[in-house]
Amino acid sequence: MPKRHISGAVRPRIHRLTLAYRGTPFLGWQRQANGLTVQECVESALATCWGEPITLHGSGRTDTGVHARAQVAHFEAIPRLPPRVLVSALNHHLPPEIRILKATFAPPGFHSRFSAIAKEYHYEISFTPSQSPFRLDLEWYLPRPPDLDRLAAALARFEGTHDFAAFSSNPGYARSSTVRTLHLCRVRARGGQATLIFVGDGFLYRMVRNLVGAAVKVARGRLSPDDLSLILAGRNRSRAPATAPACGLYLHRVYYDHTTLQRRLGRA
Amino acid sequence: MPKRHISGAVRPRIHRLTLAYRGTPFLGWQRQANGLTVQECVESALATCWGEPITLHGSGRTDTGVHARAQVAHFEAIPRLPPRVLVSALNHHLPPEIRILKATFAPPGFHSRFSAIAKEYHYEISFTPSQSPFRLDLEWYLPRPPDLDRLAAALARFEGTHDFAAFSSNPGYARSSTVRTLHLCRVRARGGQATLIFVGDGFLYRMVRNLVGAAVKVARGRLSPDDLSLILAGRNRSRAPATAPACGLYLHRVYYDHTTLQRRLGRA
Repeated sequence: MPKRHISGAVRPRIHRLTLAYRGTPFLGWQRQANGLTVQECVESALATCWGEPITLHGSGRTDTGVHARAQVAHFEAIPRLPPRVLVSALNHHLPPEIRILKATFAPPGFHSRFSAIAKEYHYEISFTPSQSPFRLDLEWYLPRPPDLDRLAAALARFEGTHDFAAFSSNPGYARSSTVRTLHLCRVRARGGQATLIFVGDGFLYRMVRNLVGAAVKVARGRLSPDDLSLILAGRNRSRAPATAPACGLYLHRVYYDHTTLQRRLGRA
Repeated sequence: MPKRHISGAVRPRIHRLTLAYRGTPFLGWQRQANGLTVQECVESALATCWGEPITLHGSGRTDTGVHARAQVAHFEAIPRLPPRVLVSALNHHLPPEIRILKATFAPPGFHSRFSAIAKEYHYEISFTPSQSPFRLDLEWYLPRPPDLDRLAAALARFEGTHDFAAFSSNPGYARSSTVRTLHLCRVRARGGQATLIFVGDGFLYRMVRNLVGAAVKVARGRLSPDDLSLILAGRNRSRAPATAPACGLYLHRVYYDHTTLQRRLGRA
């Protein structure tokens, strides 16, 4: 029974959720027959709150073991709880590895995936003499320190608009084209840790992990930045280096408006 | 068979190890009949390297779930590997939750426990609107932010030399006295996180967690700093607040020389 004291309660509205999760215990975002996923956990918490099944749409899938600092998802339903209370209620029903950070009502027509104009991924690597026991499953540990100048030179080759077919693990999956624009592709290092930052208008399947795998190979001196440009131009996945492990990858942010994106890119 | 090409190889020497561990999967430091402990894991790795059982002595025990950033331990044995190689060999045989950070030869008479002149513990709390999924088991999460001024005022009551019987979970366990000196007892806060820092000449059983439990109760407004002073003077554990959870506690450092300790305390 809809509660009439919540304004507009009888009209279905689009609810937008921002959520963080540790990917380690999940088989990725998307519902699966054979194991626990993030989408399934949140849908189950929603069903508990609404008393009926609710379909949740994410801004995109994340693979097994991939983390999110601010994934965005939406669902349509007759409001049952004010957004703040909804956050607490959902978190109460979710495992601690998933946290709802925010709930708001989105304008009509909002879609977490189709309204997104850009995404930001971070990839965390570490190269201290031994890996911190407190960072297991949260980074890619490299026993030998990479050459950070070469890493930066490699990433610079990816910035801009390119056909990224060589860095998609499933090129057929991209419905129309494998051309994407990376607005930003940089490394930020401190101590024995580095964050590889990717801001782009869209990402192909496993694209970030494939780019990281290739960039680290350059940083280790086994490929040159020019080799990368050739691999990119060749558009052939089988010629490209191996995929970096899932545990280092974080969906950091999803962008829905141009002002915020331009500010992030330092162009505002 | 001792290897003669390592200088002094036929004479047993004292090996000093510095190690970090995530306490979550272990039943604490000390060997137990009924579950995995840190001491047992390291002793088993040592036995593999030496081909015979070796007894490891820690600077002190840590409880189930308590972490260490730089625990110190020692053992006596005929050198078989140069210290640097020993670090790699032990880490190879250890689970990733335990990392040997350093191995050195200690001077004759060194004992990780009896030669220690002070220890530093850190206790991590967080009070963001929801707990980070990446910090589970690594901090004590408080859903309501504590009053940091009151927290600091509470900790100030513990600094100095006191009989800490009210904050020992097993006063009978202290062989001689329950008097200890806390050289430093402070809070360092940033954003939704705070670190409670304790440097002392010695700590009673569960003393840090008991002090944290009491200080947080003051920070929540349920006790006054004056109440704490009364509890301290009363020397009665049953009057003192509950113990803080193990997951927030880190053995941060063990001090063996006065110059290093005085420098830490800003008195050098």
